Amino acid sequence: RFIRRDGIGVVGVPFAHGQNKPGVHEGPRLLREAGFIDGLEKLAGWKVHDYGDLDFELVKEDESYGPCNIQLPRTNGLANKLISAAVQKSIVDHGTCISIGGDHSLSAGTIHGHAQAHEDIVLIWVDAHADINTSLTSYTGHLHGMSGAFSIKELDKYIPKMPGWDWLTPTVAARDIVYIGLRDVDPGERYLLDKYRIQCYDMYLVEKYGMAKVMEMTLEYINPKLNRPIHLSFDIDCLDIAFAPATGTPVPGGLTLREGLFLAEELNKTEMLTGVDLVEVNPMLGTDVGKNLTLWAANLVLQSCFGKITAGNVPAGFEMPKPEDVGL
Amino acid sequence: RFIRRDGIGVVGVPFAHGQNKPGVHEGPRLLREAGFIDGLEKLAGWKVHDYGDLDFELVKEDESYGPCNIQLPRTNGLANKLISAAVQKSIVDHGTCISIGGDHSLSAGTIHGHAQAHEDIVLIWVDAHADINTSLTSYTGHLHGMSGAFSIKELDKYIPKMPGWDWLTPTVAARDIVYIGLRDVDPGERYLLDKYRIQCYDMYLVEKYGMAKVMEMTLEYINPKLNRPIHLSFDIDCLDIAFAPATGTPVPGGLTLREGLFLAEELNKTEMLTGVDLVEVNPMLGTDVGKNLTLWAANLVLQSCFGKITAGNVPAGFEMPKPEDVGL
Amino acid sequence: RFIRRDGIGVVGVPFAHGQNKPGVHEGPRLLREAGFIDGLEKLAGWKVHDYGDLDFELVKEDESYGPCNIQLPRTNGLANKLISAAVQKSIVDHGTCISIGGDHSLSAGTIHGHAQAHEDIVLIWVDAHADINTSLTSYTGHLHGMSGAFSIKELDKYIPKMPGWDWLTPTVAARDIVYIGLRDVDPGERYLLDKYRIQCYDMYLVEKYGMAKVMEMTLEYINPKLNRPIHLSFDIDCLDIAFAPATGTPVPGGLTLREGLFLAEELNKTEMLTGVDLVEVNPMLGTDVGKNLTLWAANLVLQSCFGKITAGNVPAGFEMPKPEDVGL
Ligand SMILES: [Mn+2]
Ligand SMILES: [Mn+2]
Ligand SMILES: [Mn+2]
Ligand SMILES: [Mn+2]
Ligand SMILES: [Mn+2]
Ligand SMILES: [Mn+2]
Repeated sequence: RFIRRDGIGVVGVPFAHGQNKPGVHEGPRLLREAGFIDGLEKLAGWKVHDYGDLDFELVKEDESYGPCNIQLPRTNGLANKLISAAVQKSIVDHGTCISIGGDHSLSAGTIHGHAQAHEDIVLIWVDAHADINTSLTSYTGHLHGMSGAFSIKELDKYIPKMPGWDWLTPTVAARDIVYIGLRDVDPGERYLLDKYRIQCYDMYLVEKYGMAKVMEMTLEYINPKLNRPIHLSFDIDCLDIAFAPATGTPVPGGLTLREGLFLAEELNKTEMLTGVDLVEVNPMLGTDVGKNLTLWAANLVLQSCFGKITAGNVPAGFEMPKPEDVGL
Repeated sequence: RFIRRDGIGVVGVPFAHGQNKPGVHEGPRLLREAGFIDGLEKLAGWKVHDYGDLDFELVKEDESYGPCNIQLPRTNGLANKLISAAVQKSIVDHGTCISIGGDHSLSAGTIHGHAQAHEDIVLIWVDAHADINTSLTSYTGHLHGMSGAFSIKELDKYIPKMPGWDWLTPTVAARDIVYIGLRDVDPGERYLLDKYRIQCYDMYLVEKYGMAKVMEMTLEYINPKLNRPIHLSFDIDCLDIAFAPATGTPVPGGLTLREGLFLAEELNKTEMLTGVDLVEVNPMLGTDVGKNLTLWAANLVLQSCFGKITAGNVPAGFEMPKPEDVGL
Repeated sequence: RFIRRDGIGVVGVPFAHGQNKPGVHEGPRLLREAGFIDGLEKLAGWKVHDYGDLDFELVKEDESYGPCNIQLPRTNGLANKLISAAVQKSIVDHGTCISIGGDHSLSAGTIHGHAQAHEDIVLIWVDAHADINTSLTSYTGHLHGMSGAFSIKELDKYIPKMPGWDWLTPTVAARDIVYIGLRDVDPGERYLLDKYRIQCYDMYLVEKYGMAKVMEMTLEYINPKLNRPIHLSFDIDCLDIAFAPATGTPVPGGLTLREGLFLAEELNKTEMLTGVDLVEVNPMLGTDVGKNLTLWAANLVLQSCFGKITAGNVPAGFEMPKPEDVGL
């Protein structure tokens, strides 16, 4: 069952209202400038269709919601509805969609949209955080910490319908999710992860098994026959601060970029990776060196998800020049 | 044989005269401010008894000692006598003791004190250095490089009685020690490590086996039945400069914080970790970013030693809020 | 067949015209100041013969060459001819040669010179780059990206004779090379690596197997009986930016210094490591902290190649002082 075709849709999601640090909306622009699209076209021969950036509206009188004061529920709800439609369109039109954030709230929409195109998607969430708080357990009221919960069918009963979110029904079963890189998980989140036995490779287990074994177990667990489309929700703060410092909620003790690229290359090899979110790069945090390092890391992860090989690519049609060809 | 009860004693040891860089005495204050005690109470449900900081006296006319000009022998001796008593009291009263440095000279006292409460302790020394110089092999004359030697029974004959140290008899046999993280070992130290076949996992072996295997072999070697109390002497400079730059004698090529946290979690799981030293954090060295990163690392190590789980904790008595509970 | 004797020749190669960033010529001076020679003598008991720095001439009217505008071909050719002679002399006189760069173009000369002394050398190239572009595939025209290609017999037919290089015939068969650390390989390079089945452990494979296994497979592949002299061409940019930032063409996702030191220690243990290039340290790039970290890393790699043990050395003739020896 071949899912990928020859195209990749790119959707810019400069949404930042799932948290409160300015700068994360610059992700789409700066990642394009970092040249990941060029790499996808030149190295791996993709036809990339850049849909440009979505426009988001700040809904007026968007009072916070519930006992945890969830911030801007309507604005987030509307934004994710647009995101879902855009991702669905890209996957239907081209087979795949790369959604560039923006903060991690966008994954509520991207996962929903992906599931409209393929209802049997499996989800790999790579992140220091599980983002599986509900609007009743959130410490911060920031929706970028809840987009995981909004996507999981079994958690519906924990999540009251918030204004702006009536369109969303969760699309992924707890059995079809794997978390990798966790190291900052709130009590309510660990409760739900345990209760629904959601497969997690937190940093303790990544350290114990190594990324190669973790990827083997991950694919064996959620996609043994490699016949289901994969949604990768990649939060750049899964990487250690040493490799990706420019992000809103950094947590020490993270993945190396090598591990991130290994994960991306393994997923590419399945040929079933049809949806990727690259979120939480915030170029305004930290130094210039840190910003460029973080953008570079994100750029390489995206290219490795779609065919950039660490060992080097020989693009189709490459001709090896010989001296005699140029009269030397 | 259950050693741990429900309490943890915390002793601040702002001692800096085992070396010569100002700033390391700030460790106790800044680590408290970093909130490790809060984590121990909230996440793992401990009753923490903070004894506050010990007061140390600079002994007058404390001339240096012997051919290696050991600095401030009496001041160090007196300080460690106080430390020993404080650690012994904490372990007797609450079952465990966390000693926050200050420089690594304090481990002469903490190990001695721990051994008064449990004479069958085993010692895990995690450090870039072995700190097993004697007063006759020391290059620097700094006692923070000798606290290991002072603790080992078989080395007694190499260590002349220094003024201020008559109270100390070494308490740990060479067979009951494991070093992890070594990468800067002087000739006299390697001579003694070889002669008494002290088990060392230097960075070459950590690279070869990985931390999971190293911890398995370590516990198998010194605590196969997990029935002996463990003293962990954790020098923050065991971690690579990339993860803990703010320390007095940094050495490149070190452990990752992930490995440090993995080690701490494994020791916590034995339920036999009753004494922990966290030493050599020097907030005055390097940049603010480096200082905060180092304090964050030390904070996480301490919490992981006593129950913080990388995958997330569900504290006892946690109630998962449901919409119907709050009329939503 | 014992190749090493008791001496090490050190040749300073302050050559920087294989690329265009000033500062890399400072490598020899600064690495000597970092004290690696002292370490070799004190720790591992070598007699080190420092030949000082080679002098290089900027050939007049050295127009660039061919369709890829190869820069300063004659200057590079002349320099490498000198380098080859110097390396050959050092290996014949003392058994080994350490060549301190300077940029990676110097390896064309060092490998050639090493092969004049031992024609059955095997080559281990540790680098983020393969440096196996030809003068017809180079994107940059910089000869530091071609010194690998110049050394490989099978690639002769792809490399037109450039002015200044008539003296050079490639000396190493494709079968006798292993690359470690690759992560930035051009299409023409990957084409040649595939075509001649050159053994490469790029960062994907290093992540998958770990450095211990990689070194085992490397030596098993090119030196199973450990009876052939080894040439190590070590480009400091093989290490991740976090561990060696001060270099001309840094690429994220690299080796840790631990892995670099492990590799060096393994090669030392073969007692067949007779030629080492340490190249591309550029102290003028980045911060002072980064410069010192990079020099420290290079210093440790060199010492580990020739007997510095991470677990600590006991130099021959070391006497353990006892209290009674000094009347204490
Ligand atoms: Mn996230
Ligand atoms: Mn996150
Ligand atoms: Mn220490
Ligand atoms: Mn230390
Ligand atoms: Mn190179
Ligand atoms: Mn390179």
